[in-house]
Amino acid sequence: MRVVVINTGTELLLGDVLNTHLSFIAQQIFPVGLRVERQITVPDGDAIREALREALESFDIVFATGGLGPTTDDITREITAELLGLEMRHDPVVMAAIEARAAARNFRLTDRIPRQANVPVGATVLPNDFGTAPGLYFPPHVGSAARRSHLFLLPGPPRELRPMFTTHVLPLLREISGESGEGVTRRYRITGLGESHVEEAVGEQLLALDGLELGYCAMPGEVVVRISGDPSAVNSADALIQAHFAHVIFATDETPLEEVVVRLLAERRNTVATAESCTGGLLANRLTNVAGASAVFGAGYVTYSNAAKTEVLGVDRNLIDMHGAVSEPVACAMAEGARARAATTHALSITGIAGPSGGTEEKPVGTVFVALASNGAQIQVLRDRFPADRITFKQLATQTALEMLRQRLSG
Amino acid sequence: MRVVVINTGTELLLGDVLNTHLSFIAQQIFPVGLRVERQITVPDGDAIREALREALESFDIVFATGGLGPTTDDITREITAELLGLEMRHDPVVMAAIEARAAARNFRLTDRIPRQANVPVGATVLPNDFGTAPGLYFPPHVGSAARRSHLFLLPGPPRELRPMFTTHVLPLLREISGESGEGVTRRYRITGLGESHVEEAVGEQLLALDGLELGYCAMPGEVVVRISGDPSAVNSADALIQAHFAHVIFATDETPLEEVVVRLLAERRNTVATAESCTGGLLANRLTNVAGASAVFGAGYVTYSNAAKTEVLGVDRNLIDMHGAVSEPVACAMAEGARARAATTHALSITGIAGPSGGTEEKPVGTVFVALASNGAQIQVLRDRFPADRITFKQLATQTALEMLRQRLSG
Repeated sequence: MRVVVINTGTELLLGDVLNTHLSFIAQQIFPVGLRVERQITVPDGDAIREALREALESFDIVFATGGLGPTTDDITREITAELLGLEMRHDPVVMAAIEARAAARNFRLTDRIPRQANVPVGATVLPNDFGTAPGLYFPPHVGSAARRSHLFLLPGPPRELRPMFTTHVLPLLREISGESGEGVTRRYRITGLGESHVEEAVGEQLLALDGLELGYCAMPGEVVVRISGDPSAVNSADALIQAHFAHVIFATDETPLEEVVVRLLAERRNTVATAESCTGGLLANRLTNVAGASAVFGAGYVTYSNAAKTEVLGVDRNLIDMHGAVSEPVACAMAEGARARAATTHALSITGIAGPSGGTEEKPVGTVFVALASNGAQIQVLRDRFPADRITFKQLATQTALEMLRQRLSG
Repeated sequence: MRVVVINTGTELLLGDVLNTHLSFIAQQIFPVGLRVERQITVPDGDAIREALREALESFDIVFATGGLGPTTDDITREITAELLGLEMRHDPVVMAAIEARAAARNFRLTDRIPRQANVPVGATVLPNDFGTAPGLYFPPHVGSAARRSHLFLLPGPPRELRPMFTTHVLPLLREISGESGEGVTRRYRITGLGESHVEEAVGEQLLALDGLELGYCAMPGEVVVRISGDPSAVNSADALIQAHFAHVIFATDETPLEEVVVRLLAERRNTVATAESCTGGLLANRLTNVAGASAVFGAGYVTYSNAAKTEVLGVDRNLIDMHGAVSEPVACAMAEGARARAATTHALSITGIAGPSGGTEEKPVGTVFVALASNGAQIQVLRDRFPADRITFKQLATQTALEMLRQRLSG
């Protein structure tokens, strides 16, 4: 089935707001066996007309986001009714929901709000539990124009669209796509290995499986392997992938690596401290992005300067003079110092050269040492190099540190 | 001039990667007087052909991203040459740059890499300082097909596209858009005030100016006021905006707030330390995202637990027992403790309740105290509330802290 996403929103085209709808919808529909084939962004207002007309001619499923609100530019609902030749009726159930919401939140119903309770005849209302504008679903048979497409109109704000999609749209999609009888899909998220390494190890064997579709995607510090197809092929592929990579697969769903680590720490009632030089607090920040981190996060130290490494973490000044701040001994001393000071089960340290300046021949920009000190275990340290811009460097270095701790907690 | 952005990339349509190109390009071209009118995402491979053909017919400026790499799916270059009826020639200068890059980074040139040195005759090469595939610019007169459009082919990875765009594409766009004689535009980035507050203060007076176009955009912790039009109207508007908001405008370009702060600190040869509870290292991370931060950043302390506040920062345990960890006295003690320990000119502290749990009636989720201790000045502390998700809360709280320091440094 051919799927298109149409995003309306002048703010998207001005660059003020990042379009997160495409990524969200694509991830949601993938397990149902659907993929987005094309995506278009048009400004608010009349441009939606042409985009909708074209989409309804060539696609089986059309998602249109935005333009359902109360302002004069919000005309997706009206244009759709006009295109499909449908009358508009005021829906008292929708209106009652809007009024209840306004009362509960103590906001005034302006003159324009009741427009949102107008429903084209034949459309199914998708309730909006987080806003006033409901979504709308038009099955293929509704409307005067002959067409094969299922059309979904969805609200623009992500906090409204997302729950509406999972609660009300996905069940409909399962029915729609069930008709087409497509297979199952699985994803494996791997860190610490390059895409080419993964492909070299299992690529040919996976491609040899009949009825299996295979995809790779490389992001900074992560490779996603995706398989879909008929269940027996997917099961064979799963066995193959697990046999090779079980130890480096950190998730098969959307869970970020830092959340996996926080969960493992909480299960074991362990705690962690961080000592960061070049990553400047990103490691602590990622861990504390996870709700519930306070139970496992002891303390974080951002010791950028040599003086701070000595004063805050107790790193021997001679060690720094002898080996340099970016070195294996200093990484180890930072981890041990952090663990001692915060009295935690584990401590991670990162010291390196983020750039753009500060590199030497022996230790070029991008060089990093990551150490893990744990209660009752030998200290572990590794050297790596990420020649990238500053932000990507920080991401890759913290990814390495988190995976090091995940490995220890999983071992 | 009509502008379209075509993004190729199956990973965008699968939802693995967020499309950040549209937002970046839109922001970059706005000051040149250009706006994106439409954006399309198509998968890798042949779909780019139809998208390019359509775009070249109806738009004046076409940006196409992705599909310039070495794999079999990367065919944007070849399809463009075919569409425009251009021969392809191997460019020895491009090849030498690729070889130099490979040698410096010690990677092997696979058989497919040299394809990236093929350049359609008449195209201008846009050097890629962060990857192997160069960008390409096709002026309207190049190629057999009659067209009016300027076509830019740009690499898919953001870390390659972004520097290429600012260094090589923007100067070309200034020439192109200069020809069309459009008006000037200015942006004012304000933090600490809501959009409605800004609109209330100057909105009507701005709307009364002939020949002025006005736009607002609210992002977490920031309001952007955008004016464009003929120079005299823009100058009048500028005077009005500066008269009201000069003290809260932190930038009129793309500079992030943290970079403004780091620059101000460096100019004054001042230093800063951070003491963070609920923001968990984000403040330190934002400051150290700025190249050159090492000259001004003393140390950062992430003291999530009460024990860490006492042990690391020397916050009196009685103070915590008496007022709670989320309180004005504790925020002050954290800032003073951090400044004393790191021996810096300034120290910022943040303590609050990020949620989702931990709130009380007196101090609901989202409550935050931010303090600033400075050498030779009275300590400053403020209480605010950001009832938002955890990630947004952290962003807003750190934005408040950075603005507090910016105000002090600008005063």
